[in-house]
Amino acid sequence: MNMKIRRSNRLVDLTRFLLENPHKLVSLKEFSERYGAAKSSISEDLSIVKKTMSEFGLGQVATVPGASGGAYFAPKYSKENATQVITELVELVDDSSRLLPGGYVYLSDLLGRPEILRKVGQLIATQYLDRDVDVIMTIETKGIPLAQSVAMYLNKPFVIVRNSSHITEGSTVSVNYVSGSSKRIKKMELSRRTLKQGANVVIIDDFLKGGGTMKGMQSLIREFDANLVGMNVFAEGEFSGERLVTGCTSLIKVTTKEEPSDYLKAEPGNFLTKVFTEADN
Amino acid sequence: MNMKIRRSNRLVDLTRFLLENPHKLVSLKEFSERYGAAKSSISEDLSIVKKTMSEFGLGQVATVPGASGGAYFAPKYSKENATQVITELVELVDDSSRLLPGGYVYLSDLLGRPEILRKVGQLIATQYLDRDVDVIMTIETKGIPLAQSVAMYLNKPFVIVRNSSHITEGSTVSVNYVSGSSKRIKKMELSRRTLKQGANVVIIDDFLKGGGTMKGMQSLIREFDANLVGMNVFAEGEFSGERLVTGCTSLIKVTTKEEPSDYLKAEPGNFLTKVFTEADN
Repeated sequence: MNMKIRRSNRLVDLTRFLLENPHKLVSLKEFSERYGAAKSSISEDLSIVKKTMSEFGLGQVATVPGASGGAYFAPKYSKENATQVITELVELVDDSSRLLPGGYVYLSDLLGRPEILRKVGQLIATQYLDRDVDVIMTIETKGIPLAQSVAMYLNKPFVIVRNSSHITEGSTVSVNYVSGSSKRIKKMELSRRTLKQGANVVIIDDFLKGGGTMKGMQSLIREFDANLVGMNVFAEGEFSGERLVTGCTSLIKVTTKEEPSDYLKAEPGNFLTKVFTEADN
Repeated sequence: MNMKIRRSNRLVDLTRFLLENPHKLVSLKEFSERYGAAKSSISEDLSIVKKTMSEFGLGQVATVPGASGGAYFAPKYSKENATQVITELVELVDDSSRLLPGGYVYLSDLLGRPEILRKVGQLIATQYLDRDVDVIMTIETKGIPLAQSVAMYLNKPFVIVRNSSHITEGSTVSVNYVSGSSKRIKKMELSRRTLKQGANVVIIDDFLKGGGTMKGMQSLIREFDANLVGMNVFAEGEFSGERLVTGCTSLIKVTTKEEPSDYLKAEPGNFLTKVFTEADN
């Protein structure tokens, strides 16, 4: 290091470090050694980062006291920021050219855009901020980008359930499930090594219709003796009749009709009312 | 905003903003309005961020002069940091329990860990720092997490090529390809709306053996009248005979044998020699 490290440099690198390692506790000692500065200075640095993040509504810096203490950053959207993101998503999806045959909705472009994935990841991570989550689960293919984004902000691994046997996964556990919309029996499976007994799992997927796929992932979680913490989808579609699962959070809700002409309406899902109370800001 | 915004607060939020929006040019005016500070102060803030990032070998802050000018952050690993990440990856993969039947290697756990994906994303983004890239392409399923990570750090969208027709993709373009290792003819396809004519494409995948899948993606790029900028894989396996593609960069190289007993050896791929010159640090 050729540079004398001042407070201003420490603040830049500290912010970078905390953002790149969300939910990871780092001791004052570690930072103190990294920057060659007194623990008391690091402590002051942390309170500047904390205050700034909180003021801009982007997350909280939590400090843990004691010998094994330190600080970590937890990405968290304020109600105001969350509302803004959901309004943006509604506007992006509310476009009848997204309507596909069978009442499906084209979303692949949105789920491949970094700036959207960053926002959605932070949004969903906010919901599980105070929950004990060990792993994020999704099913191939379109749930993957969302699951990965949430995993990045919770800083926990994600696992991908697959639709058919793949030689490169090794031994697997599989379950049968009924696709809620088509009523066909399908099979999903997960590599045996990827999920530990007792793990706390959040399920993330792109679209919820009848809930058959979601229910399949729930059975898979039971087969591994793991625990379901929550379920979240990007968009919830219409479904006539009763869904196979309850308690799933959705960012947006989409209503479609193909007759007499193409019709698609997007509106906010149940996320805001489920995650924030009246008192939140 | 209840807080008086000082330089220390600006540095924290500016760092966060630049990291969250890599490669995005932001004008001094925009920052100046966001923080209620003079452009000259913002300019000084930016040079502090620039110096710190460069000193820690984590990226460069580029400033663009003139009326439409501003600054952007480009994540970039120094040769030292890149070498360290590749050494880490080699150690993680060099474990014969990862050997699967047919000479395949189990990597799904690594490709689901945020801290690894962050490093690999920054590493591969370093290779395309000065290239004109419009979109990252990968094929389902295991290439997706890597492609997404690279896309996040280049701040460009990624598209997912699929193995079979999916109703939720709308109209698609498909090509046939020969899987280099199994010699079977397969079909891959991409939604027509996802890739624009003339787009500059980087292909990312998890594993390279014969190169058949990679060659298939190259034909798909030609079908869309788009341009191939480069190809990158996490791991390169052994292949007896000539590969169907040349010029692919690999982070690690894996040699396996099943007879007389399970054998797996991981070593650095060609990344370091392809991306850095002797003079780099």
